[in-house]
Amino acid sequence: MKKIKVNFGQRSYQIIIGQNILDSLGAFLNSLRLGSDAFIITNNFLKNKYGLKLTRSLSKAGINQYFKVVPDSEKSKSIKTASQVIKDLAEFDKNKKVFILAFGGGVVGDLSGFLASIYRRGISYIQVPTTLLAQVDSAIGGKTALDLETGKNLIGAFYQPKLVFSDVDFLKSLDKLQLSSGMAEVIKYAVIKDQKLFVYLENNRDQILSASPTALEKIIGSCSVIKARIAEADEKEKLGLRTILNFGHTIGHAIETAAGYKKYNHGQAVALGMAAAADLSVRFGILDEKTSLRIKNLIKLYGLPLKLKGVSAERIIKAHFHDKKFSGKVNKLVLVSAIGKTRIARNIDLKLIKAAVGSLY
Amino acid sequence: MKKIKVNFGQRSYQIIIGQNILDSLGAFLNSLRLGSDAFIITNNFLKNKYGLKLTRSLSKAGINQYFKVVPDSEKSKSIKTASQVIKDLAEFDKNKKVFILAFGGGVVGDLSGFLASIYRRGISYIQVPTTLLAQVDSAIGGKTALDLETGKNLIGAFYQPKLVFSDVDFLKSLDKLQLSSGMAEVIKYAVIKDQKLFVYLENNRDQILSASPTALEKIIGSCSVIKARIAEADEKEKLGLRTILNFGHTIGHAIETAAGYKKYNHGQAVALGMAAAADLSVRFGILDEKTSLRIKNLIKLYGLPLKLKGVSAERIIKAHFHDKKFSGKVNKLVLVSAIGKTRIARNIDLKLIKAAVGSLY
Repeated sequence: MKKIKVNFGQRSYQIIIGQNILDSLGAFLNSLRLGSDAFIITNNFLKNKYGLKLTRSLSKAGINQYFKVVPDSEKSKSIKTASQVIKDLAEFDKNKKVFILAFGGGVVGDLSGFLASIYRRGISYIQVPTTLLAQVDSAIGGKTALDLETGKNLIGAFYQPKLVFSDVDFLKSLDKLQLSSGMAEVIKYAVIKDQKLFVYLENNRDQILSASPTALEKIIGSCSVIKARIAEADEKEKLGLRTILNFGHTIGHAIETAAGYKKYNHGQAVALGMAAAADLSVRFGILDEKTSLRIKNLIKLYGLPLKLKGVSAERIIKAHFHDKKFSGKVNKLVLVSAIGKTRIARNIDLKLIKAAVGSLY
Repeated sequence: MKKIKVNFGQRSYQIIIGQNILDSLGAFLNSLRLGSDAFIITNNFLKNKYGLKLTRSLSKAGINQYFKVVPDSEKSKSIKTASQVIKDLAEFDKNKKVFILAFGGGVVGDLSGFLASIYRRGISYIQVPTTLLAQVDSAIGGKTALDLETGKNLIGAFYQPKLVFSDVDFLKSLDKLQLSSGMAEVIKYAVIKDQKLFVYLENNRDQILSASPTALEKIIGSCSVIKARIAEADEKEKLGLRTILNFGHTIGHAIETAAGYKKYNHGQAVALGMAAAADLSVRFGILDEKTSLRIKNLIKLYGLPLKLKGVSAERIIKAHFHDKKFSGKVNKLVLVSAIGKTRIARNIDLKLIKAAVGSLY
């Protein structure tokens, strides 16, 4: 079991990562004194698969529970769902000792954290992420959100949980697509901050893709530390230090938008975005061809795409310039100068970007 | 013109209080660099009465404007209204340089502040309060909220504005009931913290009730300072320092609940609550009869009630024990030991509370 402290002064908390540790969750919650009533937000699949085990762990610790099931879809990050959930929360909260337990992936985590931030002007919540993507990324750092029709994540709050509890056993139930989608984020962390992790990923593909608990615990631990340190340094995204987390994401989002969020899932789009960013780094003159190839090979090794089909480069470039991360008309991209080292480039010649996107065909 | 600094470190801001100062608002906003696009949340009456003047002031400063009218009713503090308003906000926010201007009383201020706190994980907003109650109380301190069916203010955030801009000219359009309702809060500040203000209120009733700008500027200034200092010391209500602001409000809320929010408006209920709290302070042995009478006389002087009709004492006591400010079964009331001095009493003998409520008949 790994414990990582996330430092936010009085709001500091731990990330716990381990194998088959759900039994001990109740005891952790008791030691945190979060309250006697757990409002658990989850989806149907997880409730059916792990509900009993979760209930046992919490009951042993004397914690009352209410399971609120939401659809396992981005649509649950809506005002409509949030409004229904908060009504049930207020109804359940007879004793004013409620806390929220987010039991699921990124959607459940974003919704739960946001509701915790606004109910009674802020109550406690904990993250129990069940996907690789959530364990290495979305559950850490306190960014919570809902979507509007006009755009994703337009509503939200920066609001830290009291605990992030990552049991790698949950990842056994992921299908290959979900696992490789999460791996895109793991590769991102290795490229931007951790050469050792990069080498580990190169050498341990089979264990990781077969969901070896030891291998997963290792990579989730490495990624969690990176995410935690970056979030600590720039909690509210005011200093631009979180920007490097967008490596592969700017072009990745453009691909998702241009392809209508259907053809490529988030991990695949990020993989393509990272390949383009590596290519652009070479064209920009800060990365050698060999390292760029090593990055692309690692992406490929985990079953993620390097080539793009069915979406034109023109549409991607167009979507790129509508990305919400732009303010004004100056583009800004995270490039890489070596494994573990990034550089933020602004106002890049459009020809270079077009050529980099072109390299995906 | 008075300027009061509210100290929240990097989030500090000013309260501006003056007579006929709306013309200068645009210039203030420009100096704060809040953005080029003002999303103004207001009601129909205010838009018709002051919209043109507000528009002129902002246009002169080069600020684009969008007026969003919401009903002038507690019902506007709902998820439904919030959801409609935020859609229009996102639609208007093409340049990502929007800020919110709350132009109204407590309802508009609570709704606007809450929306500012959640849109894009927090944008700037300013308060331009137009009622006495909002100018002396709700616009200051950063408490924002929506209601749920299960209870008032159950959703919200602590979120500070960038400016509170109180033009006493707005108060000219208030009817007597609105003015005296606001005066209940003014009297509260005087009783809990400001003996000089108390004497001023005793001696200047006619000027105040005829909405003399000079008199209003004075009392709003005094109250704003008190509210600001208390909010600074306990921004998120964790230290219990804000508790004294509940003087008259605990029993007052019980009266509102028991009377179904119809028979007595907020100010009248608070007046009755203060009368009962003064009476209780005497019974509790910490206040002399003469000072209690002085408090009651001041309440009466401003046309506020000292006697209760049509609601039984039993119902009030019952509502009192369901108040959301109770946690557990120990009652807690703000008592007064002299003009300007409070004491918080816990676990008060129910007989004394009953007798104090009984004194209202």
